[in-house]
Amino acid sequence: MPFCYTRTIHFPDTDAAGVVFFANYLAIAHEAYEEALGTAGMKLHSFFSDTGTVVPIAKSEAEYLRPLVCGDKLRVTVTPTVLTPHSFELRYEFFRIGPTEKLAARIRTEHVCIASATRERHPFPATLAEWLKNG
Amino acid sequence: MPFCYTRTIHFPDTDAAGVVFFANYLAIAHEAYEEALGTAGMKLHSFFSDTGTVVPIAKSEAEYLRPLVCGDKLRVTVTPTVLTPHSFELRYEFFRIGPTEKLAARIRTEHVCIASATRERHPFPATLAEWLKNG
Amino acid sequence: MPFCYTRTIHFPDTDAAGVVFFANYLAIAHEAYEEALGTAGMKLHSFFSDTGTVVPIAKSEAEYLRPLVCGDKLRVTVTPTVLTPHSFELRYEFFRIGPTEKLAARIRTEHVCIASATRERHPFPATLAEWLKNG
Amino acid sequence: MPFCYTRTIHFPDTDAAGVVFFANYLAIAHEAYEEALGTAGMKLHSFFSDTGTVVPIAKSEAEYLRPLVCGDKLRVTVTPTVLTPHSFELRYEFFRIGPTEKLAARIRTEHVCIASATRERHPFPATLAEWLKNG
Repeated sequence: MPFCYTRTIHFPDTDAAGVVFFANYLAIAHEAYEEALGTAGMKLHSFFSDTGTVVPIAKSEAEYLRPLVCGDKLRVTVTPTVLTPHSFELRYEFFRIGPTEKLAARIRTEHVCIASATRERHPFPATLAEWLKNG
Repeated sequence: MPFCYTRTIHFPDTDAAGVVFFANYLAIAHEAYEEALGTAGMKLHSFFSDTGTVVPIAKSEAEYLRPLVCGDKLRVTVTPTVLTPHSFELRYEFFRIGPTEKLAARIRTEHVCIASATRERHPFPATLAEWLKNG
Repeated sequence: MPFCYTRTIHFPDTDAAGVVFFANYLAIAHEAYEEALGTAGMKLHSFFSDTGTVVPIAKSEAEYLRPLVCGDKLRVTVTPTVLTPHSFELRYEFFRIGPTEKLAARIRTEHVCIASATRERHPFPATLAEWLKNG
Repeated sequence: MPFCYTRTIHFPDTDAAGVVFFANYLAIAHEAYEEALGTAGMKLHSFFSDTGTVVPIAKSEAEYLRPLVCGDKLRVTVTPTVLTPHSFELRYEFFRIGPTEKLAARIRTEHVCIASATRERHPFPATLAEWLKNG
């Protein structure tokens, strides 16, 4: 079972078209990623200094299937997959919770692990490697 | 007892100083307001069209007492007070949850009720008036 | 020559990693799109009511090639291409301006034109069609 | 003459009420502050490491006088005043540019200078002190 994050849509997520601004879907996906890491015992705040590595996002892709409005409740699933010894992808599905649950968006982010000091590719720290395996 | 909203600090809330960007405290306060209204049965998405009124924010004030970092858990209280027949204030206190709970910020917003059509001051719709009384 | 938008990176664009948050590249791309439309005489604020159509974003893709920090100056190019009678894509390139200009990101958004009333696919309004042709 | 920053309102600044979200006025004020510092030769990106001090915002106040919509052009003035040997305030006025220029908002932020290492109050670095004097 993938990790699930639930989230209510709020006013600051929306734009003048009355719906969630397309860039904010990515911010919500990142929140889900942080919650998944947190549940696995990793803290993003100290991850960088604790491990000497950073995992910047190299690519993102999004399909926006349904508009989301203020008050909508979301269930976001997060599924990690290792791509190479230094990179992984996360796939997110956004479901709008309701009498009939609807798929509202599909997001994909690609992350590369690098050493903070040298900016060169670096194997995953142990806790991250374990989460990627079991995620 | 005031309404309580709990919220985790995420990466999109922060800035390059490593802490929550000062403007984002106000966005989090607005989320707490929306949740308080939602709990009282009001939906911000349809409030404007349902009631023919809008309640724009005329003033805001904030005291930033402690920095907040990614992963911090907040408890935000919301306390409404009627100011005039057409305006009210909301006071928010941000507590950082932890072994010793700390007051992290105090926010105040002032809202004016106006008719959407004429943009003139207008009494509160009934559901809003009731929430302001019982808040 | 594609349309060019110049933009300075500011604190609210950044996150606790000290660089521009990945979702904010998409927000900056949208700013460039708005400026391109504005230069062609279209106003996003009244476009929807003026034409009875909306052009929501159906897909986005981004490649993040270099981190951007507070104070960086960007040149963003916008190149539109018609895909079908009801859809178009925009390709953006982000260049960090400096002694040696560097490509910092590539973004792509896909937009679908629909009638506001029926939510069904609709041909492009004339001004939009012209911009897409000459873009 | 106070420092002037010009800025166009874009979609990401707005919310589902169709106007600029109240918290985003503060983000725009911060952009104006950064531009004022940059014009005076200070770079926010390296200010902290260059000087060993930080100047977090301790308070903010805002009066929202007129709604702002996508495409509006703003002129934002920034006026600094020293309050104590370790603190200063910035006053911002937002003017909506147009046939008749209108005051759209008044913002005030209060900043405290502290040493990064000890988090104790610290005199202003020289370049900042000079800007505050000549603002």
